Amino acid sequence: MTNKVTPWEVQGSVDYEKLIKEFGVSPLKELPSVFNDEILFRRKLVVGHRDIQKILEAMKSKKPFVVMTGLMPTGKFHIGHMTIARQFIFYQKLGAKLYIAVADLEAYNARGQSLEDSRKNAIEDYLLNYIALGLSPKNCDFYFQSDRSKDGKKASAYYRLQNLLARHASFNEFKAVYGEISPGKMLSSLLQAADMLHPQLPEFEGKVPVLVPVGIDQDPHLRIARDISQRIKPPFIQLSSTYNIFIPGLGGGKMSSSDPNSYIALTDSEKEVENKIKKYAFSGGRDTLEEHRKLGGNLDIDVSFQYLKFLFEEDDKKLKKIEQDYRSGKLTTGELKEITIEKINNFLKEHQKKRESARKLVGKFLD
Amino acid sequence: MTNKVTPWEVQGSVDYEKLIKEFGVSPLKELPSVFNDEILFRRKLVVGHRDIQKILEAMKSKKPFVVMTGLMPTGKFHIGHMTIARQFIFYQKLGAKLYIAVADLEAYNARGQSLEDSRKNAIEDYLLNYIALGLSPKNCDFYFQSDRSKDGKKASAYYRLQNLLARHASFNEFKAVYGEISPGKMLSSLLQAADMLHPQLPEFEGKVPVLVPVGIDQDPHLRIARDISQRIKPPFIQLSSTYNIFIPGLGGGKMSSSDPNSYIALTDSEKEVENKIKKYAFSGGRDTLEEHRKLGGNLDIDVSFQYLKFLFEEDDKKLKKIEQDYRSGKLTTGELKEITIEKINNFLKEHQKKRESARKLVGKFLD
Repeated sequence: MTNKVTPWEVQGSVDYEKLIKEFGVSPLKELPSVFNDEILFRRKLVVGHRDIQKILEAMKSKKPFVVMTGLMPTGKFHIGHMTIARQFIFYQKLGAKLYIAVADLEAYNARGQSLEDSRKNAIEDYLLNYIALGLSPKNCDFYFQSDRSKDGKKASAYYRLQNLLARHASFNEFKAVYGEISPGKMLSSLLQAADMLHPQLPEFEGKVPVLVPVGIDQDPHLRIARDISQRIKPPFIQLSSTYNIFIPGLGGGKMSSSDPNSYIALTDSEKEVENKIKKYAFSGGRDTLEEHRKLGGNLDIDVSFQYLKFLFEEDDKKLKKIEQDYRSGKLTTGELKEITIEKINNFLKEHQKKRESARKLVGKFLD
Repeated sequence: MTNKVTPWEVQGSVDYEKLIKEFGVSPLKELPSVFNDEILFRRKLVVGHRDIQKILEAMKSKKPFVVMTGLMPTGKFHIGHMTIARQFIFYQKLGAKLYIAVADLEAYNARGQSLEDSRKNAIEDYLLNYIALGLSPKNCDFYFQSDRSKDGKKASAYYRLQNLLARHASFNEFKAVYGEISPGKMLSSLLQAADMLHPQLPEFEGKVPVLVPVGIDQDPHLRIARDISQRIKPPFIQLSSTYNIFIPGLGGGKMSSSDPNSYIALTDSEKEVENKIKKYAFSGGRDTLEEHRKLGGNLDIDVSFQYLKFLFEEDDKKLKKIEQDYRSGKLTTGELKEITIEKINNFLKEHQKKRESARKLVGKFLD
């Protein structure tokens, strides 16, 4: 089995422990109790970190800190994207200043998507969903890589940083991290480094720690940014990052924006959800009902259960009961799927209402 | 003899005809008579062009056009730099809108010079000399690569272009043009392409032809920018450019900012000028006075004469007389040098006065 994990592509099943070992990320443990409020931490979808202490210290001493993410608006916003969005909104409630970069220049350089399409999708899909999930315009700097700020001093400082960082990078490290690299991808990588580091510039927040919560596949970007950030004079405060594993796609592999049958979009209808879960959600059940009753189901590979666990069933007791009943064979695959469909549809019904009323807030996020 | 001519380095003597042939530049001939007002054209220091017709047509039909140059503020402003400055001011008087980029990010990425040093040198030396030579703040956009504009829409448009151009470039063409290439130099080259092309963006002048007058060694930048500019959608109006040969350094080789004995700076004192010309200016005279009187001097290699011809003796009749007298042996090297010293010092005396009063205009050039 070959695992190819770069920010551009994830192929095959992902051996997360190996990745954590190879990438030098630390396992995430012993977080302050407040993190238990968010099931992504409580149930360990977020598995690793680098330098999280800087952020925990800032939180403890009530000092400012920034949480930064980029969104690549090349497909529909789906439940996989919720994992970053929820962490993000969680930190905003804890007092973080948020920076959200719409990676439209990266979408252009790495995927060939026009800036216009990225802008439209970022606002009409991603931003509306973020707002509906609870994102507040307060303490939130939402921007496009291609159009950083109305304030020329800020805009120049951001792009200047991209150019200055270039001097401290080498082709070999891009190659080591990305494999094949083009000028467009190299500029994207340097601009992403600027995305992560520029909150520390005097034109923005000044010297504050910055946390970048990412999917484990995004670590190459972090490594490049971390390395270069220490070579420039004066060096930046080292970036902090956390790493979440992916919630599986419907078929059990990666959830992919290019395959609608691999994901549930936050704009899917009740019927679509029902159909997708029934038809595509990979099951940990046995071949026959008789066998299932006798041996029980396998929760580790059951996609419906992962969705409940990491996103839709917040009640620990209820989840525990489902777990026990399925493992014992008392709960059938059909019944587990019904529970999942109901949970997701209840969530989406509320969410889609919020999404419509989110429209009136969009203007507050745009510079 | 190996000739290495890249924008970073010129080694050995330069075979201009070969360069023009290899680089595919056209010889410059039959310019409108107004160009004869500037001795750099009249006396053929400007030898080649690409697509100059676009500019001549705009001039003829009184349509707007832009003349763009970059200045790399890594050494003292010397009489070699005057050749671009004078062309520039000439075009401003003809009605061109000027764009002057201080290549401080390039100085950082290719030469390791800090932005602070570049800023100081660009203003205190280059800009003051440009103003003293006749540059007007009217119709002139003087900017720093690292700090494009107070207006964020303009700043973002400029750096966005650098990023968008990247997608349409390949490593191989950078290698073919520059030989060795680092990430810093690659970003510099793309930013230079943005410098040349961004006047055509809607945030700036819109669709206008842009002329870039350069020394022949800068053509690699032009070729990259020209090639990429036609691949992006929509394509830019193809760049126009003119190419001047170099006036020689005092020793006959290249005038180099890193060797004060190779140039005359516009801030040199009368004594320094006298000393430099007497001591270092390569002479086309004969070994003995007797031989010189008999055989005459060689003007093609005489540095003092080149300075008179291309910069300091505007009167064609006077220049002709000097030429005849030196060639016939009537004028000695010592006498020719005396004439040159007097001409340069007369010029510098006036210039340095203007330079001081130029200080009060500096603010009008800064955003």
